Amino acid sequence: MRKEFRDLAPPEAAHEAIASLGLAGGTETVTLREARGRVLADRIDAALDVPGFDRASVDGYALRAHDTFGADEADPAVLALAGVVDAGERPDVTVGGGECVEISTGAVVPDGANAVVMVERTDRADREDDAEDAPDRIEVRTSVAPGDRIMFAGADVAAGERALGPGTTLTAREIGLLSALGVDEVPVRAAPRVGIVSTGDELVRPGEPLDSGAGQIYDVNSYTVAAGVEEAGGEAVLYPHAGDDYDAMEDLLRQAAAECDLVLSSGSTSASAVDVIYRVVEEQGDLLLHGVAVKPGKPMLVGRLDGSAYIGLPGYPVSALTIFRTFVAPAIRRAAAVPEPDAATVAGRMAGEERYAEGRLRLMPVGLVDAGVDESLDGTDVGGETLVYPVDKGSGATTSLVEADGLVEMPPDTERLDAGEAVEVRLFSPDVRVPSVVGVGEDDPALSRVLDRLDTPRYLGLGSREGQRRLRNGVPDFAVTTSGGDTGSPTVELGAWTREWGLVVPAGNPDGVTGLAALVDRDLRFVNRTGASGLRTSLADVLAELADERGVTRHDLVSAIDGFEAGRRAHESPPRAVLSGHADVALGLRVTAETLGLGFVPVGEETVRVLGNPARTEKSGVGAFSAQVAGMDDLLDELPGYGRPD
Amino acid sequence: MRKEFRDLAPPEAAHEAIASLGLAGGTETVTLREARGRVLADRIDAALDVPGFDRASVDGYALRAHDTFGADEADPAVLALAGVVDAGERPDVTVGGGECVEISTGAVVPDGANAVVMVERTDRADREDDAEDAPDRIEVRTSVAPGDRIMFAGADVAAGERALGPGTTLTAREIGLLSALGVDEVPVRAAPRVGIVSTGDELVRPGEPLDSGAGQIYDVNSYTVAAGVEEAGGEAVLYPHAGDDYDAMEDLLRQAAAECDLVLSSGSTSASAVDVIYRVVEEQGDLLLHGVAVKPGKPMLVGRLDGSAYIGLPGYPVSALTIFRTFVAPAIRRAAAVPEPDAATVAGRMAGEERYAEGRLRLMPVGLVDAGVDESLDGTDVGGETLVYPVDKGSGATTSLVEADGLVEMPPDTERLDAGEAVEVRLFSPDVRVPSVVGVGEDDPALSRVLDRLDTPRYLGLGSREGQRRLRNGVPDFAVTTSGGDTGSPTVELGAWTREWGLVVPAGNPDGVTGLAALVDRDLRFVNRTGASGLRTSLADVLAELADERGVTRHDLVSAIDGFEAGRRAHESPPRAVLSGHADVALGLRVTAETLGLGFVPVGEETVRVLGNPARTEKSGVGAFSAQVAGMDDLLDELPGYGRPD
Repeated sequence: MRKEFRDLAPPEAAHEAIASLGLAGGTETVTLREARGRVLADRIDAALDVPGFDRASVDGYALRAHDTFGADEADPAVLALAGVVDAGERPDVTVGGGECVEISTGAVVPDGANAVVMVERTDRADREDDAEDAPDRIEVRTSVAPGDRIMFAGADVAAGERALGPGTTLTAREIGLLSALGVDEVPVRAAPRVGIVSTGDELVRPGEPLDSGAGQIYDVNSYTVAAGVEEAGGEAVLYPHAGDDYDAMEDLLRQAAAECDLVLSSGSTSASAVDVIYRVVEEQGDLLLHGVAVKPGKPMLVGRLDGSAYIGLPGYPVSALTIFRTFVAPAIRRAAAVPEPDAATVAGRMAGEERYAEGRLRLMPVGLVDAGVDESLDGTDVGGETLVYPVDKGSGATTSLVEADGLVEMPPDTERLDAGEAVEVRLFSPDVRVPSVVGVGEDDPALSRVLDRLDTPRYLGLGSREGQRRLRNGVPDFAVTTSGGDTGSPTVELGAWTREWGLVVPAGNPDGVTGLAALVDRDLRFVNRTGASGLRTSLADVLAELADERGVTRHDLVSAIDGFEAGRRAHESPPRAVLSGHADVALGLRVTAETLGLGFVPVGEETVRVLGNPARTEKSGVGAFSAQVAGMDDLLDELPGYGRPD
Repeated sequence: MRKEFRDLAPPEAAHEAIASLGLAGGTETVTLREARGRVLADRIDAALDVPGFDRASVDGYALRAHDTFGADEADPAVLALAGVVDAGERPDVTVGGGECVEISTGAVVPDGANAVVMVERTDRADREDDAEDAPDRIEVRTSVAPGDRIMFAGADVAAGERALGPGTTLTAREIGLLSALGVDEVPVRAAPRVGIVSTGDELVRPGEPLDSGAGQIYDVNSYTVAAGVEEAGGEAVLYPHAGDDYDAMEDLLRQAAAECDLVLSSGSTSASAVDVIYRVVEEQGDLLLHGVAVKPGKPMLVGRLDGSAYIGLPGYPVSALTIFRTFVAPAIRRAAAVPEPDAATVAGRMAGEERYAEGRLRLMPVGLVDAGVDESLDGTDVGGETLVYPVDKGSGATTSLVEADGLVEMPPDTERLDAGEAVEVRLFSPDVRVPSVVGVGEDDPALSRVLDRLDTPRYLGLGSREGQRRLRNGVPDFAVTTSGGDTGSPTVELGAWTREWGLVVPAGNPDGVTGLAALVDRDLRFVNRTGASGLRTSLADVLAELADERGVTRHDLVSAIDGFEAGRRAHESPPRAVLSGHADVALGLRVTAETLGLGFVPVGEETVRVLGNPARTEKSGVGAFSAQVAGMDDLLDELPGYGRPD
């Protein structure tokens, strides 16, 4: 394949370029105990008969069938007992005419016998008194045919038979068959080795100290992609970052290429690092593709270096995972011969309309929510379907990673997906499950503890306002809001609690703050919450009262507060600014102040309400959540400033 | 729970007894790189803000928003360039009024700035000639608001926020979030340790030499169950067999109990070994249940020994796996907090009627076959369903292991499952897949090679007759038969080939065998195939001709042949009897004789036909198989005695 990247390549060309890299993992031999989940590289034929001997299927007597012909209850055949054979024992006796041998299930049928009669159809005959040393005699009360109750050698598996074919995934049952054949080592497809190269001098490995002031961030993509490689049946090798200059990058890429079948890198926030990789692959290797006409595939690279395959992924975590899932994981699965589980694809329906008209394939990261028993959306009856909604519209947020369950392909010629339209979702990992219950709204510590008591909930702490907005649009199962007002759509209250809020100050309240007036009248650095937060609404309400009292406008007050406009999204962030000395006063909850060992000036109490989607009240996850909210009094007792509404 | 095993316990009691054992795996800490697929034991809160600093979202200029108010294309704001900040760099500059700083995506927004303008909306102003050392000036052609193009510290994840809840399965995306938080070690649910004790002195470990003459067999259940334990999220520990006497068994069980959370044993063919285990658990521990009213659960034991849980499984491999899957795997999953994948259950319809009336729950091992596009069975239109048919009706065969895909529960009060009735199949392993194509019939070496070229076929070499019978009953996709006659139902021929058959004799033909007459007229030990084999039918046909020639009955000829009546199931078995010296002449194929280095006396040529189920011709697996049969000439050329029919 020749280089062709004057324009963005079509996605099919990217698949073809990756296929042309000839990624393959080869073959290796593993012990039977390590073989679970691996894929057979070669056919396995039986090298021996199973059973390896003519085996008694019941407890009874081995005999010559001919000796029993005509025998029945009234007229049994009487045979002389010539010996005993137990399982796991070499017979020390042969069976002659008129003789039988006592035999247990699983034992070797002795020479001379050609049938076994089960013990239930026999009796031990009385010993004849006049023959003390005569053998015991057995009465056989039925006639048996040659071969009766014998599993002949090879009847289960015969030597030379095809036992398992190449490409067979080895589960418990195949391992059972292999052990029956005495096989203790099997040739399996080797996992392709995939090297992951970290780019960007600002990236730090988890566990190492982070210098945020110098713009350092933890390396997300290397670990995400490594896990994706392993989920696809590859072996991931993480390479330590070696710097973004050309020589260091070349050394690193060459080392990875020498040791691995495929080298992956992901775009860094540093454009120069990506440029360096690009130059190394182009000048030292063979760059096949640069940029693919998919959103988000623009920065994608495909090439070869020193006989190894190379693929460059985008930098945003969800984008990297999206491109990995679409283009790279299938190639690794093929090389490892690990089929994609059926469960890795889920059918769903769009929760709302989604427009897109950029003329290139869009790989849309989506979240999933189970619509419950009987959901009607936009007039469309979607039944007990899984609803699909887009997430991470290019924000690059890490949290999108755990909100995104998979991706939906929007072809270039599709300008719109309608609400209720059927779509196929490719999950990011086979183990991803649709959350049991999905909520959006106010960030609250009591709620966090309730969520801990649920199985696989999803909660997005985007504030009361966003919770109400999304509930109106019919996506989540519930919203959590501190606003008691009209939500603009019918809802069902699933529960409520109260929390005390106020001003969080340094321990000991060194500035002697006594109330909101101090913020207005004194030169204190204040940290607020964002506009979506219900707590900020409560603050604004109390400020409005203060403005009334003073006969000024709310704006007059607000503009006198240093830091009122900007705001932090999460409930602990403003108090943490006080803790770190970056602020004098913060908007917060009593529980947060006490948890962080800070001072607290109470201002008010607000009610946190859980509002349910009325179409989902029958959903089991909603029921489990409601029950936990009803039974959360132990949590409310534990948390300072919490209670139930009067 | 008290002992209660005077009668067989109901299955619910077995589930309860196992639940009462208190199986749990505890908690352990693993590194992030080892965490994939594990289940979080505790909630993880963010210990830091992500990003950890106010971060530029675009390449551009950091500035004070106020300085741009009113700016537009026609009247840009002109700011003095005070410096540059790159990603991963600590700013060495602050932004004053009328100033800006060049900034790259991901870089720290320097103190003083409260917004970033993207580079596309700016121009570098001409340098004023009269001020050589004056700073560069930037024209900003738009007005920006405070906070524009900045991702504030904690906007993605805020310190103190709930990041992941307990019970979360860690897939690629969760590992991504954890790495963003700098977490390199996570508390996860520990896998419960499950000891597997082998019973029965006749059992030998795979890889060790087998003394078949002494009734030894390879240990199947230990390895099967160990793989099942690992599939369910447990850690399996195999204990070496120590002998079946009481003291040795007690020592072994006590060692396993001391080292593991659960000890499993499986019934052995040796009844005495099971009795010994029973006595040890009863006398040294606490036997809760002995025998459960399920088929095949009669031999099941549940108890405690030295604080560890103990469960005894049946001895037949499919029965052991059935009881393990139904009673033990769910308990291990609960202890490991590993949810059962949705894919572990499949919906299907019965391929035929199945009766059962023993008054206890039946756990019926079943095979699956995809019925293709449009299947009509017994007048019932079952659509593109998965058909379910019972396998291993108590035979104990190892091969049933790989024919059985899962199990169907037949409740005690159900006497019959009708053909076409909807059933739920619990797969034996989550990775079990419905075969792409299912065939039954003649054992043939050319066919084995064709099968190697297919993805996950299933073929049961039960002989031409059984293949035709099953095809008539509508279960398999195809039958392979040497009989050209009426199959009793409409079929579609998918392909055919010919093979040369005859008498296999020792190398050099020491007895000078020239044809079938030698078998009749001389005292030679002959080994035949079983009655289901098409090869035996061909032999019988030629013997009938010989009888005609001689003017005798076929029976006269047959009774003169030593070994004619008994027969071996697989095509290589009779020639192998010649190879081992146990026979003088065997029925076989030229290819087998040549492969084994034996002599061959040709008798005839027979046509092997592949007959397709007419309702499945549209099925993709059938199409792939037909294409391989059509393209198998390379195989026919390679194999001695093979060709195409005229």
